[in-house]
Amino acid sequence: MTAPDWKTFPAEIQEKLYQNIPEEWRDKTLKDKMLAEGFINAKEFIDTLVPDSEKKITSLDAPTLAKVIASRELTSYEVAKAFFHRAALAQQLTNCVIESWYPAALAKAKELDKILEETGKVVGPLHGVPISLKDQVDIAGFDSSIGYIGTYNHPKSENALLATILENAGAVTYVKTTVPMAMMAPETVSNIHGYTSNSLNINLTSGGSSGGEGSLIGAQGSPLGVGTDIGGSIRIPSAFQGLYGLRPSHGRVPYLRVTNSYSGQDTMPSVIGPLSPSLEGIELFMQTVVGAEPWRQDHKVVPIPWRDASEFKTRKLTIGVMAYDGCIMPNPPVLRAVDECVAALKRAGHEVIEWKFEEQAEFSDVGGKIFAADLGQEIRDTCAISGEPVVPVVEYLVDESTFPEILNVNQWWDLCNKKYELQTKFLAAWAESASKTASGREIDAIICPVWATPPFEKNKFESAVLGYSVPFNVVDSSVVIVPVTKVDKLIDLKDETYTPKNAKDQQVYDSYNPEVYHGIPICVQVACKRLEEEKAIAIASVLADSLK
Amino acid sequence: MTAPDWKTFPAEIQEKLYQNIPEEWRDKTLKDKMLAEGFINAKEFIDTLVPDSEKKITSLDAPTLAKVIASRELTSYEVAKAFFHRAALAQQLTNCVIESWYPAALAKAKELDKILEETGKVVGPLHGVPISLKDQVDIAGFDSSIGYIGTYNHPKSENALLATILENAGAVTYVKTTVPMAMMAPETVSNIHGYTSNSLNINLTSGGSSGGEGSLIGAQGSPLGVGTDIGGSIRIPSAFQGLYGLRPSHGRVPYLRVTNSYSGQDTMPSVIGPLSPSLEGIELFMQTVVGAEPWRQDHKVVPIPWRDASEFKTRKLTIGVMAYDGCIMPNPPVLRAVDECVAALKRAGHEVIEWKFEEQAEFSDVGGKIFAADLGQEIRDTCAISGEPVVPVVEYLVDESTFPEILNVNQWWDLCNKKYELQTKFLAAWAESASKTASGREIDAIICPVWATPPFEKNKFESAVLGYSVPFNVVDSSVVIVPVTKVDKLIDLKDETYTPKNAKDQQVYDSYNPEVYHGIPICVQVACKRLEEEKAIAIASVLADSLK
Repeated sequence: MTAPDWKTFPAEIQEKLYQNIPEEWRDKTLKDKMLAEGFINAKEFIDTLVPDSEKKITSLDAPTLAKVIASRELTSYEVAKAFFHRAALAQQLTNCVIESWYPAALAKAKELDKILEETGKVVGPLHGVPISLKDQVDIAGFDSSIGYIGTYNHPKSENALLATILENAGAVTYVKTTVPMAMMAPETVSNIHGYTSNSLNINLTSGGSSGGEGSLIGAQGSPLGVGTDIGGSIRIPSAFQGLYGLRPSHGRVPYLRVTNSYSGQDTMPSVIGPLSPSLEGIELFMQTVVGAEPWRQDHKVVPIPWRDASEFKTRKLTIGVMAYDGCIMPNPPVLRAVDECVAALKRAGHEVIEWKFEEQAEFSDVGGKIFAADLGQEIRDTCAISGEPVVPVVEYLVDESTFPEILNVNQWWDLCNKKYELQTKFLAAWAESASKTASGREIDAIICPVWATPPFEKNKFESAVLGYSVPFNVVDSSVVIVPVTKVDKLIDLKDETYTPKNAKDQQVYDSYNPEVYHGIPICVQVACKRLEEEKAIAIASVLADSLK
Repeated sequence: MTAPDWKTFPAEIQEKLYQNIPEEWRDKTLKDKMLAEGFINAKEFIDTLVPDSEKKITSLDAPTLAKVIASRELTSYEVAKAFFHRAALAQQLTNCVIESWYPAALAKAKELDKILEETGKVVGPLHGVPISLKDQVDIAGFDSSIGYIGTYNHPKSENALLATILENAGAVTYVKTTVPMAMMAPETVSNIHGYTSNSLNINLTSGGSSGGEGSLIGAQGSPLGVGTDIGGSIRIPSAFQGLYGLRPSHGRVPYLRVTNSYSGQDTMPSVIGPLSPSLEGIELFMQTVVGAEPWRQDHKVVPIPWRDASEFKTRKLTIGVMAYDGCIMPNPPVLRAVDECVAALKRAGHEVIEWKFEEQAEFSDVGGKIFAADLGQEIRDTCAISGEPVVPVVEYLVDESTFPEILNVNQWWDLCNKKYELQTKFLAAWAESASKTASGREIDAIICPVWATPPFEKNKFESAVLGYSVPFNVVDSSVVIVPVTKVDKLIDLKDETYTPKNAKDQQVYDSYNPEVYHGIPICVQVACKRLEEEKAIAIASVLADSLK
């Protein structure tokens, strides 16, 4: 098969994606209308387009949807239609969808209704719940082109194990969402689909690499989605659209038959997990997936059943807080979000101490070296299939000057050991925290920013710095993203007294403009140790409750 | 520091090791006496040298020792002295020790006695139990030279986490045992210490790479030892000395600060686990180590507490048996051992089916490629420190012609993926086994040979083939070695009708000589899936009971 012309092909794909939308939801002038009406928030604009009945449905989260479908207050079909309609509109406004099968998915929803009617039973805990999938998640008959033109038109023959588990649980999959080239960027842009905007402000990035998911769920075009995370790719889009998101530790959620860049890089691998407007959606996803015992099919999944973590909802917690990592000063609303968490937790009677890890700066160094181990060779090779150029943000972040040449195995193993040394020191520091707490217990979790800035402006990725997200990839933490507040231009003034400490700090400082970011959500990370997903969710719920 | 002369240094080290033995246990003519008295079995010869009181003590296993020490029937000191005496004699007969601290360890035993006397309490579940350590396990103040001359005289500054856990539980460590150069061989030989013989027949190999452990425990110079396994290195010495041994899955027992070859090679890593004359010793070790929650300090350890597996001791089991892997026909006593297991399990009412995995031959291919990924570069580099040559068995097994050059990261990741594909197929075949059983359940475990031959003759490593051990490294199984029978020259006749299928099969066939192997133990593997140590131990106990 000859590769398509990278210059003309994207237009073809866009047209195909457009034609895949049911006719009654298509409108090539939709975005112009939105702008003409003075909207920059796609979610709010969509609210003006859809009937109230649908708005009511799409405001429900996954567990509620499962409940009302099971109790026959709503049909799967009604739910699917409401979400698909919004998804189709969001797709035309933010460019967040790369594959769709709305008609087939509507038929599946009808089938689920029939089963429920005939048997009186749901097929599983997600009966009728629409679930969106990041492009990487293989679905038979569809591409997993992962942001490249040259890999398009190579439909997969088999579903990802995770997709099968979700569908067996009754979920209705219907779209695959956009990713940046190679999934190696915190903003979602590629030659194949162009730019995916933030659904709450289309002038801003949706984040990345699960930016299509973030944008779609942010627009309420999906109640639950699947993303992946190798440097923050679930957490950044969650944070940028004010969603809950879980970065599980490696080996908790199956990645089998999920197409990936740097596949086989197992030392700091990409992990797969949920994004959701509610924490309960995250928990339902995890209970369902882990409950399916994926370790029976995916060798990388560890055989740990879903565990009770109610202890952490009832006892006093000890939380370590790191507002500033010592390298890059977060923008004012980010610092305020952390402050609000501290105040809320203290009000609720929990102990809060400062978390400070001596080797914090090492995380970005080790993470960056792992990302750059092949000096971008795989990316260049895959671009070469179609002749397309590497997109600028990926070029910017995968630093080809990191090493004189592609690492050989001995050098790679040395790097893996360097990471292990850092992990060991991190665990020691965590244990050592017990000596600094009133409870005498080590901290239960770390709370810190997700990203130093609000979602940056379209293509202005120079302020991008992974220093708050990558550390938890290095130590493979279970991390939950929790929405805290929104930027308020009257409160979150630029700190005119601050003197940036380095060039990147300066870029981050310079990029902050309260006028631009007004109203955009700010989230924090709640990070536990490795394979502590249940605990991280429990503590996130304590935090969310304390913030109410 | 200049490296010592590799030609003269070994004699120096041997003399130092000799001088480290308490004077009353030293005898430079010991081995000559043994030979003069017509012994080839070092254990039996030692039985003639030690007092009955000591023989009685050294016949006890670790849990029994812990019990009789706790109940003050024996002192820690008496126990230590009995084992150390045998260890010192074994060391002089089989060359199984590379570091020792008998006097300090005797002092530690006395201290433990004092604590028990004063407090009435044991310090932990291993109070007073002597434990031997493979050379790799770091002990502050001692080398972990791992079979090289150039790395000798670089004493470690800190204990391995595992050593600390065992000592905190009351264990008395006293020796580090020999390994082959780089731990990359199934027989234990290096330029630094020479050859480690099988303690049941000093003309045969003790196995490797935990050959020093196997030899020492086989001579009853230790009731419980620590080995490591990247291709069979716990299992082969266990099998060759008729011991129980556990190859845990990666991430169950802490490897932190255990010196290693190819350190950082995390895709099919060496794992660390126990060798013991009794299965109860294996279980006590695992309960103690996992109970210490090593994941709090070692990031590679998964947070899975020790689980109840009594279910597998009470219900009918479904066992898959693979006597022949389709590539290398095991020698007659090995086949008979498997047959005896089948008969015993059937007698006990368990279901036994044939286990056949279509891709069985792929295991050795993938394993061999992982071993050879750096074409032996690290080994050559480490030899270059002293100028010593690579020992022949390592030269033979690490095939420098596997690839045209050292793999780069992209090639390495491809190889990691190839391994993952094989793991996925293996899991699918395991699940598929349910369709072939009367119970309708998938198999609980696989029983198969450990090695195609009995322990081969000294330096005759040409028959060495890892095809029965390496597969479980590739799929990271929890595997227990179970002693079944002994070679009987009257029963285990050479099969004159067999026509070898390939060159290696021919070597294995040719190497078999019932006269040479008469009386040597034969063991089998009981392999469960990943991170199923409790289940593997439970099923091993069912097998062992059924064989009684």
